[in-house]
Amino acid sequence: MTAASPAVEDGLVERTLAADGRRARAAMLAYLPQDGPRADLYDLVADYPSRPGKGIRPALCLATCRAHGGETEDALNGAAAIELLHNAFLVHDDICDDASHRRGAPALHRRHGVPRALNAGDALAWLAMGPLLDNVKTLGTELALDVLAEFQHLIQRTIEGQAVELAWRDRRFADLDVDTYLKVVIDKTCWYSTIHPCRVGALIGSRGRVDLEAIAHFGFFLGAVLQIRDDIENVTDCERAHAKGFGSDIIEAKPTLLLIHLARSVPPRTLDEVTRLVGPAGDSGGAGRAERISHVVELMERYGSIDYACAFADGLAGAALAEFEAAMGWLPESPDKDFLRMLVLHLRDPVIRGR
Amino acid sequence: MTAASPAVEDGLVERTLAADGRRARAAMLAYLPQDGPRADLYDLVADYPSRPGKGIRPALCLATCRAHGGETEDALNGAAAIELLHNAFLVHDDICDDASHRRGAPALHRRHGVPRALNAGDALAWLAMGPLLDNVKTLGTELALDVLAEFQHLIQRTIEGQAVELAWRDRRFADLDVDTYLKVVIDKTCWYSTIHPCRVGALIGSRGRVDLEAIAHFGFFLGAVLQIRDDIENVTDCERAHAKGFGSDIIEAKPTLLLIHLARSVPPRTLDEVTRLVGPAGDSGGAGRAERISHVVELMERYGSIDYACAFADGLAGAALAEFEAAMGWLPESPDKDFLRMLVLHLRDPVIRGR
Repeated sequence: MTAASPAVEDGLVERTLAADGRRARAAMLAYLPQDGPRADLYDLVADYPSRPGKGIRPALCLATCRAHGGETEDALNGAAAIELLHNAFLVHDDICDDASHRRGAPALHRRHGVPRALNAGDALAWLAMGPLLDNVKTLGTELALDVLAEFQHLIQRTIEGQAVELAWRDRRFADLDVDTYLKVVIDKTCWYSTIHPCRVGALIGSRGRVDLEAIAHFGFFLGAVLQIRDDIENVTDCERAHAKGFGSDIIEAKPTLLLIHLARSVPPRTLDEVTRLVGPAGDSGGAGRAERISHVVELMERYGSIDYACAFADGLAGAALAEFEAAMGWLPESPDKDFLRMLVLHLRDPVIRGR
Repeated sequence: MTAASPAVEDGLVERTLAADGRRARAAMLAYLPQDGPRADLYDLVADYPSRPGKGIRPALCLATCRAHGGETEDALNGAAAIELLHNAFLVHDDICDDASHRRGAPALHRRHGVPRALNAGDALAWLAMGPLLDNVKTLGTELALDVLAEFQHLIQRTIEGQAVELAWRDRRFADLDVDTYLKVVIDKTCWYSTIHPCRVGALIGSRGRVDLEAIAHFGFFLGAVLQIRDDIENVTDCERAHAKGFGSDIIEAKPTLLLIHLARSVPPRTLDEVTRLVGPAGDSGGAGRAERISHVVELMERYGSIDYACAFADGLAGAALAEFEAAMGWLPESPDKDFLRMLVLHLRDPVIRGR
């Protein structure tokens, strides 16, 4: 594991994530309706947004905007829209995965049933149109429409990625390979988590004057590091080992890089065993959830799947840093530029608690 | 039943519905992506749009536009967006209702499972942004943004209506009254089926120069007639009596005007019986689906619930005609103006086949 850089030790990354996450959350909450059905709709709509996330998406959007010469306020509506959409995706994804928990509390559909949660997810997604239409007043028509078109494109990509991931789930994860994994990660995760926030931040900050393709490359590698890191933490974060979310990827049979590596590394008999252990039905001769998770994690450790994923993420982080220089190296140095660069290292080298 | 007017006998209503429905469907289909995952996503996305509907929403939008002096082409993107959204709502509603069939074929989630259908519904809704953003080129920025704002508003209202209807389902339909029923119908059905199509048609046709509030009143009453007529046909259309959809409102325990009337008309012991017969579980001592439906329909006939709903719809149709004159009576006479007026009668007095 690489030594943390001075800037990371300075807490720049954590401070920026916290401050921009707070700003975007406040902006997002201001777009949740005060009138209309509360108990039947808007209490559900407000549930996930009131469970704070890590702030990565809004911080990427706001910092990229500032690094390109814009103000926080210029991109705040864009960041709020991303956060609303992010929460909408979480609600619908949790239904699709039948996830039990989200951010330490029961998933919305477990609390309120699928129909109401589905409807609340629809509401969250479309509430994102509020800040995007308000951009007309603050950014002017042309830029606001460009941001809307970016938003429309990101949604289409994310839904396509979700479709391919769902199809995977119905096939045998053992048939997947690393290249296919990366292709789905681009669509399912990177577009809305990193590519779009950076593109929109740059678009707004530069008033439409920079090359968004170069920024998309940086966003892709950064998003892939983020996803693989999430995959790793799901089965290694010992602080969460007793939390409800620990090992959920295994129970939900998510085609993570670790599981794909494991499936391609074990002998056929062990592969049959892994296939039995993974997934909600888990035809594993009566083994409980915790038992199944710890068995699969043990195999991942024995066959080097966790080390492989860490090394793979290191490689992608290197690519992200190279693309960062190509896309934004020319910008004047600033704390926001530092933050964007250091975020790569922060995601690559998280403090793995208790491990 | 009122005698059909000459214009209706001329087939103006049917011709307009067919022609505008065809135009809007062609425009909608042109916005379905040709690239991207086919079997996992875009085949599902194309499924409901390829099952033709009655064409009421697009015809309302296009005829209102033409009646206000615009061309069909001006409002075609708006009509395509409404159709895409309509199909998206159908997919999500069918999941929420666990509907078995839609337009004579299995519901999408019955064919492909909830996760894929949910995702396809999301895709359909957001594809509507395509024609709405293209409006910038054909209608100019200001009008295109006004249409977008209308669209955002209609979605919020529809989702709020869906939330209240879902909440009803969990409560006892016997506690509902007619006034509450109408309030939900405004949000759940009228906004996207009639109010929005008319408002957007008038907005575009008049280039933003007419009073949309008056048009909203007309749309509301027209939409309520449409909804009640659907409720009635669900349990009376004998041609559909052997089709899969017949009586589905009873099996899904939908709070229709007929069921609300029945619950308020029967003695307590019969109410208990109705409550047992209605709904998917149908704790009715082993009676099958068809048996349960025919029993409830028999009660509806005996207690006058069907006659009540017909009379109620007649009253609303009268209100719709009055509001039509207030909102659009000043327009020069034209086949499209005739169509809008006659559509009220057409919806009020459908040819109830075989009854």
